[in-house]
Amino acid sequence: MSTSPPHNDLTYFTFGTPNGLKPTIVLEELGLQYKVKTVDITKNTQKEEWFLAINPNGRIPALKDGDLRVFESGAIMLYLTDNYDKDHKLNYPHGSRDYYEVLSWLNWQVAGLGPMQGQANHFWAMTDADSEYGINRYVGETKRLFDVLESRLSKNDWLAGTKYTIADIASYSYVRVAPVLALELDTWPGINRWAKRINERPAVQKTQTIPEGTKSVEEITEMVRSMREKADVTRDGKRDS
Amino acid sequence: MSTSPPHNDLTYFTFGTPNGLKPTIVLEELGLQYKVKTVDITKNTQKEEWFLAINPNGRIPALKDGDLRVFESGAIMLYLTDNYDKDHKLNYPHGSRDYYEVLSWLNWQVAGLGPMQGQANHFWAMTDADSEYGINRYVGETKRLFDVLESRLSKNDWLAGTKYTIADIASYSYVRVAPVLALELDTWPGINRWAKRINERPAVQKTQTIPEGTKSVEEITEMVRSMREKADVTRDGKRDS
Repeated sequence: MSTSPPHNDLTYFTFGTPNGLKPTIVLEELGLQYKVKTVDITKNTQKEEWFLAINPNGRIPALKDGDLRVFESGAIMLYLTDNYDKDHKLNYPHGSRDYYEVLSWLNWQVAGLGPMQGQANHFWAMTDADSEYGINRYVGETKRLFDVLESRLSKNDWLAGTKYTIADIASYSYVRVAPVLALELDTWPGINRWAKRINERPAVQKTQTIPEGTKSVEEITEMVRSMREKADVTRDGKRDS
Repeated sequence: MSTSPPHNDLTYFTFGTPNGLKPTIVLEELGLQYKVKTVDITKNTQKEEWFLAINPNGRIPALKDGDLRVFESGAIMLYLTDNYDKDHKLNYPHGSRDYYEVLSWLNWQVAGLGPMQGQANHFWAMTDADSEYGINRYVGETKRLFDVLESRLSKNDWLAGTKYTIADIASYSYVRVAPVLALELDTWPGINRWAKRINERPAVQKTQTIPEGTKSVEEITEMVRSMREKADVTRDGKRDS
């Protein structure tokens, strides 16, 4: 099978995170047949040898198509539209003008919004350190990046060209978890309208329980709120003593 | 000119940073004719209206080809190889097996190594805050990512397939500035050999002064070392008082 793709034998390795969600939406929007393999990052499954052979970086998501592997959500999304979206439902034809606008916004999400909102989530929820500097830095940068999205979505229905593409799917997957950071989407009316439109799509609705056991945004938000409350009590206790 | 690219009318907007360097190497390796427009980020030129019309994110680099724009270094590199590398000198043919290995490693660099090493540089050099937590987190993650590179480069000459590609150029542009973080490249012998091989390429040598005024790695390392020394003195002063 060392031939050119596609091989019509898709296995998707994922967990219920924003990066995991992006290719899941593509798989569902295109109505593809695929196996889901849950890689439980709470049990460090992504660091096991068998998975490192697929993604040497030890992170979800990853895709196999026969014996071909693709890792990183941005690369996987492009692999799927290149090979399984011949009608250009979720991207523009390779080499066209609009294709590069998709590529610009897609790279902006994976290299900017994703990592920065990820760091904001870390300092907001996952550390006992006195994280004020980190919260200001990364929640601030997340807000700036939302402003960049808004500058486009206040005037256009979609990020690239005139249709819903993988660029929208990438940013939507992070925007939808903004409540975790106590960010209110109606602060950005263009983003809010766009996110609602994407959220209502049947394929997107279906992804909410892929892989099995995926937590809802409401559950994650409540979990993080409760962790922060406990950390506040612990810190206040330390300050008092 | 709203036709499909290429338009053979390249203007590259950049500054002397690792992200700026990546497409410069591609432009030089391919021997392309292009105009360079320096966007001086020390003067916030990247936030001026004329530049935001090219890149709404207000960051370098960006590329124009006639009236078509591309932003984000990863998107620009793919634009250049798609449109101006018909002999596949720096990438594999679109849709081929090796093309997706390039795409995986390229996305790994722009979404992982780039943002994380960038945050390491920030906490290492650019903040007065007590940055121990940030340094441990991001220098630690940079080392982990170097280990991932090493896992590949200890056994293969290049990141993807069997030739030098835009995946190598992307990671090289960050690896070369590792001395700024006081990381010694000979800790990773595979990376070290690979980086030396890339560094010796005539096209890569030529990029060291593009755009005009670009600082050498040695100059930046010394500047950062001196800033850290001053910050130590300031902090020690505060601790004494």
